Amino acid sequence: MKNKKWILSKRPVGIPNIEEDFEMKESEIKKPDFGEILIKTQFLSLDPYMRGRMNSGPSYSKPVEIGGVMEGEVIGEVVESKSKFLKVGDMVNAKIGWQEFSTVDEHQVIKITQDQSLPITYSLGVLGMPGRTAYLGFLEICRPKPGETLVVSAASGAVGSIVGQIGKIMGCRVIGIAGSEEKVKYCKEILHFDECLNYKTEDIDKSLSSFGEDFIDMYFDNVGGEISDAVLNHISTFSRTAVCGQIANYNASSPPVGPRVARTLLTKQSLMQGFIVFNFEHKYPQAMSALSEWIKSGDIVYKEDIYKGFENMPKTFMKLFEGENFGKLLVKVN
Amino acid sequence: MKNKKWILSKRPVGIPNIEEDFEMKESEIKKPDFGEILIKTQFLSLDPYMRGRMNSGPSYSKPVEIGGVMEGEVIGEVVESKSKFLKVGDMVNAKIGWQEFSTVDEHQVIKITQDQSLPITYSLGVLGMPGRTAYLGFLEICRPKPGETLVVSAASGAVGSIVGQIGKIMGCRVIGIAGSEEKVKYCKEILHFDECLNYKTEDIDKSLSSFGEDFIDMYFDNVGGEISDAVLNHISTFSRTAVCGQIANYNASSPPVGPRVARTLLTKQSLMQGFIVFNFEHKYPQAMSALSEWIKSGDIVYKEDIYKGFENMPKTFMKLFEGENFGKLLVKVN
Repeated sequence: MKNKKWILSKRPVGIPNIEEDFEMKESEIKKPDFGEILIKTQFLSLDPYMRGRMNSGPSYSKPVEIGGVMEGEVIGEVVESKSKFLKVGDMVNAKIGWQEFSTVDEHQVIKITQDQSLPITYSLGVLGMPGRTAYLGFLEICRPKPGETLVVSAASGAVGSIVGQIGKIMGCRVIGIAGSEEKVKYCKEILHFDECLNYKTEDIDKSLSSFGEDFIDMYFDNVGGEISDAVLNHISTFSRTAVCGQIANYNASSPPVGPRVARTLLTKQSLMQGFIVFNFEHKYPQAMSALSEWIKSGDIVYKEDIYKGFENMPKTFMKLFEGENFGKLLVKVN
Repeated sequence: MKNKKWILSKRPVGIPNIEEDFEMKESEIKKPDFGEILIKTQFLSLDPYMRGRMNSGPSYSKPVEIGGVMEGEVIGEVVESKSKFLKVGDMVNAKIGWQEFSTVDEHQVIKITQDQSLPITYSLGVLGMPGRTAYLGFLEICRPKPGETLVVSAASGAVGSIVGQIGKIMGCRVIGIAGSEEKVKYCKEILHFDECLNYKTEDIDKSLSSFGEDFIDMYFDNVGGEISDAVLNHISTFSRTAVCGQIANYNASSPPVGPRVARTLLTKQSLMQGFIVFNFEHKYPQAMSALSEWIKSGDIVYKEDIYKGFENMPKTFMKLFEGENFGKLLVKVN
C-alpha cells in the first residue's frame, strides 16, 4: 500500500493553475515508531488561507515549499498506533496536509471529542478553525453590543455564516454580503440575517447608503478589495473592523492598490485589526463549548459542501476562488 | 473699537489659496451679558486639523461654513467680565477661532492654571491639544512596552516631538522621520531619538530596511501617504499604528489611493486605529500632570515657532503644508 499526496509543483501567479501548480505523487507509508500513530485520511478541509501558503512572500506562516505537501487539516482514523494515548479506530484532527496517509507523533494530533450527536465533519468547520475564527475574531475584535449593526462579507461562507448568526444571538442587526441570489436567500431565510446584499448584482456602496449614514458599527471582513472599500464608506464613529480574510487579495501578484483607509479611520476614530485564530488557543475551549450549545439549540445553522475524491483536490480547491461553493468546503476520500 | 476676524470665503480644492479662500472682515464687539466675558486674543494656534475643517466632506467635526470664522484655539485675556468665575486680567484658552475679540459664555473657556514657571503659550502646545494628543494617542493606542521600537512621523513637529520623547521616557527605541537636515539633527541631538530619517533626501523604505526585518512595534502616524506606506512595510507581528494625523491627505480633493493595508494588518495581526483627543477628556488631568513634570525635569524639550501679526494668519497657516515650520506654530497678535 502506498500513500498519495498532492504537492506544490510551482508557485502560482494570480489564480492557481490546477494542471501546472499541483502534482499528485505516491510515497511509502512509514511504520509508526514508539509514540507515533499512522493516520488514514477520511475528510480534508479546503480553506482560503491555503492560497496564501502557495506564495513565497511574507505572511504569518511559512509558505509551502516547492515539492512540499500542500498544507491542510484532515479528519483521520488511527489505523496503527504505538501511542499510549491513542488507539486504533480513534478519530483525530491532524494538520498533515493534502495526503491520504501520514505517520505522526501522538502530540501532533487532536483526538476528536466533540458531542457525538454532531457530525464528525463539524470538527473541520463550525467546531474547528473556521468556527473558532468566527467566534473569537468577532468577539475579540468587533466586541459586539446589542443594538449595533454588523456587516459581514462572504456571509454564507464557513466563517461568515457563523459570525452573522453570533451577531444575531448577541442582539445585533446583521447585514450580509454574498455572491448569489441563492446565498442571499439562505442568509435571510435560514440564517435570519436582517438584510443580505448580492455583490454580483448590486452596487454595494449604493445599497448600503439606503440603510442610513455612517451606521456600520462592526465589519467582519472575509474578502477585502472593493467590497471592503464600499463597506468602509459607511462605518460609524468608534467602529471596529476585524480583518479575518482577504480572498480578493490572495491571488494578487503585486501589492494591491485601493482607497487609503487611514483618513477614514482617523475621522471615524475607528479600529481595524488583523486576526489570526492560532494565537488564541487559550480561548478555544470557550469557543467550542459556546458553538456546540448554539448548534444544539438551533441558534446556529451550519452548511457543508462535501465533494468526493482525493484525486480532485486542486479542482475542488478552485471553487473557493470562483465564488461557487456554498458552505464549508470539504473533500471526502473515496 | 472693532473686532477683526478671518472668515472662510471659499472651500479650497487641494492646497488652500491665501488670496481666494480667506477674507479678513471687521465686526462689532458685543458687550458681555450676565455670565459672559469679553476676550482679547493674544496668541492663536495654527494646526493641521484646520485644513480638514475647510472641507465640506464628512469628518469628526462639522466643517466651517462659508462666511464663518475659521476655527481655532487662542490664548486670550479677559478684558470685560460679567462672570462670577472670571475677572478682568485672567488668561484663558478659548476656541473662538481666528479673531481678535470674542464675547463668550463663561463656561466656554478654560482658565489657564498651568505651572507659572512655564510659558503661557505652552497651553496651546505641549500642555494643550498637541501635547494631550501625543500623550494619550501614544499611550492609549500604541501601548508602549520597554524595548519596543517606535517610528514617529513629523518627528520634530508639535505632536511628533512629544511622542518620540515619551517613547524614550518609556524605554523604547525611537526612530523619527522628518523633512530637513536641521530637523533630523534636532531630533537626534536635542530630543535624543535613536535615529531620524530625512524623507526629503532618503528612500524611507530602504532606510528602514537597514534596521532589520519587521521590527516596528509601534507607528505614530502624523502624515499618512507614502511615508506611511513605507513604514507599514516593516511593522512587526502584533504592532500598533495610531493614526493621529494625515496631513498628506488633508488637501486631497478625491479619496487618495495607495497600497491596501488590510492584508498587511491580517498577516501581521496588527492594529491600526484612528485617534482624536477630544473623546479622552477624562484623562486630560493625567496627561497635563505628566507632561508638566517631564518638562520641568528636562525629559521633554519643546520648541515653538511664533510669528507676529493677526493679518498674516492665512500666510502663516500655509507653513504647515510646506514642511517649513519647525516647532509648534503660533501667531502673536501685535
